[in-house]
Amino acid sequence: MKEDKIRFRVKYAEVDRQDAVYHAYYFIWFDMGRTEFLRKIGVSYKELEDQGFLLVVTKAKIKYLSPARLDDEILLKTRFVRKTRIRLVFEYEVFRERDNKLLTIGETELACISREGKAVRIPEVVAKNLG
Amino acid sequence: MKEDKIRFRVKYAEVDRQDAVYHAYYFIWFDMGRTEFLRKIGVSYKELEDQGFLLVVTKAKIKYLSPARLDDEILLKTRFVRKTRIRLVFEYEVFRERDNKLLTIGETELACISREGKAVRIPEVVAKNLG
Amino acid sequence: MKEDKIRFRVKYAEVDRQDAVYHAYYFIWFDMGRTEFLRKIGVSYKELEDQGFLLVVTKAKIKYLSPARLDDEILLKTRFVRKTRIRLVFEYEVFRERDNKLLTIGETELACISREGKAVRIPEVVAKNLG
Amino acid sequence: MKEDKIRFRVKYAEVDRQDAVYHAYYFIWFDMGRTEFLRKIGVSYKELEDQGFLLVVTKAKIKYLSPARLDDEILLKTRFVRKTRIRLVFEYEVFRERDNKLLTIGETELACISREGKAVRIPEVVAKNLG
Repeated sequence: MKEDKIRFRVKYAEVDRQDAVYHAYYFIWFDMGRTEFLRKIGVSYKELEDQGFLLVVTKAKIKYLSPARLDDEILLKTRFVRKTRIRLVFEYEVFRERDNKLLTIGETELACISREGKAVRIPEVVAKNLG
Repeated sequence: MKEDKIRFRVKYAEVDRQDAVYHAYYFIWFDMGRTEFLRKIGVSYKELEDQGFLLVVTKAKIKYLSPARLDDEILLKTRFVRKTRIRLVFEYEVFRERDNKLLTIGETELACISREGKAVRIPEVVAKNLG
Repeated sequence: MKEDKIRFRVKYAEVDRQDAVYHAYYFIWFDMGRTEFLRKIGVSYKELEDQGFLLVVTKAKIKYLSPARLDDEILLKTRFVRKTRIRLVFEYEVFRERDNKLLTIGETELACISREGKAVRIPEVVAKNLG
Repeated sequence: MKEDKIRFRVKYAEVDRQDAVYHAYYFIWFDMGRTEFLRKIGVSYKELEDQGFLLVVTKAKIKYLSPARLDDEILLKTRFVRKTRIRLVFEYEVFRERDNKLLTIGETELACISREGKAVRIPEVVAKNLG
């Protein structure tokens, strides 16, 4: 699997005084997106972390094209891009369902580390299922 | 010491589409208030928790009198109310500095628990300094 | 309708250093709960607000019985309790789906105000559908 | 002025289950940084917005070098980088005060828009004071 989709609605707590989703909160959506992506390929991120494999965001970027508004139904596409021994890269696209308008594009790089903060190889269960 | 004061400004991320601080976020302020209260009586909450004494909120209530707005300078008063072997109660008052208007009143009850979730006696360092 | 149910999962962004949902964030869930409750009785809170009827939280209380953890599947029950000309009261129960354990109980009182902050009568479309 | 500094402490609500500041929340800090930067050059962002000039984030990127932990005293440097008729670019560096360790580097691009969402020229009061 290379791509996963989730759907949800913009909540009151996410919207700012411009009546737009506050820019930082898209990264929370991206996090939801990759958590569900991993779940679909059989990986529980929680279990991974409980076993001592932390995936930490090392780089992130985002481009805001158009605002998401309160109550908008959102389609979030999460795409696995590439991996190294230690790192994973995911891309994200945020669409407004109503008219399929692309609102935001993002990318995050994650590194696998131990609880002590040392870089470690991505667990086999993740690596092999990412294809 | 029975009361502590902290001052801060309302941030963009805290304000909602009504141009008012989102109601849930006052509890974050109360948390800041009691953390600083404890620090003033010589207790680092972080150290407490690292030693295995968790203070968890067991009850909370709040009354919203008037909204805090973006950029408002806030005065938060945190008052220690009472304690039992296991529990602490704090009260909070949120004022707008400009005109000393009382915006919000709250109360939280906290219980001391171990990392395993069992109720434990409040550490002596906390109990004795609360007076 | 007197009660509505929604289901969702605990997200990474909601969990604190005790591996428990941060106490303030339950109020965001309650907000989701009553928004969906209103939607089910045919009321879009967003439209209400866009028409100049703001529902603001005037009082809230909560009792934390047991922590919600990362990835927990949550069942939130929202119950309409009573109304006056201006105010609505809702109750909330947060359950962990896995074992139907009750984690949190809350209550919020809301008042209907105009954009200028004056108390106004709850719009008929809301009042009549709440029964 | 090309650079501004603010200092604050990591709060409980900002820290996740890895005992590290949740990655999305650094953007809230950057927002605080540029708001205070603007205030120091005599510009209230709130007033700007109330006059109909919205500064919206159009691009953002961040590199996480080392985690900020609960209670860490943070020094945030905000630097104005460049401007066009419509856009402003700021850079940010997050330091841990204790040992002056650089934790995070970020950049945001903002565009000035009207309340209707049209790109507009950055108000003179901002442009001239940025130098």
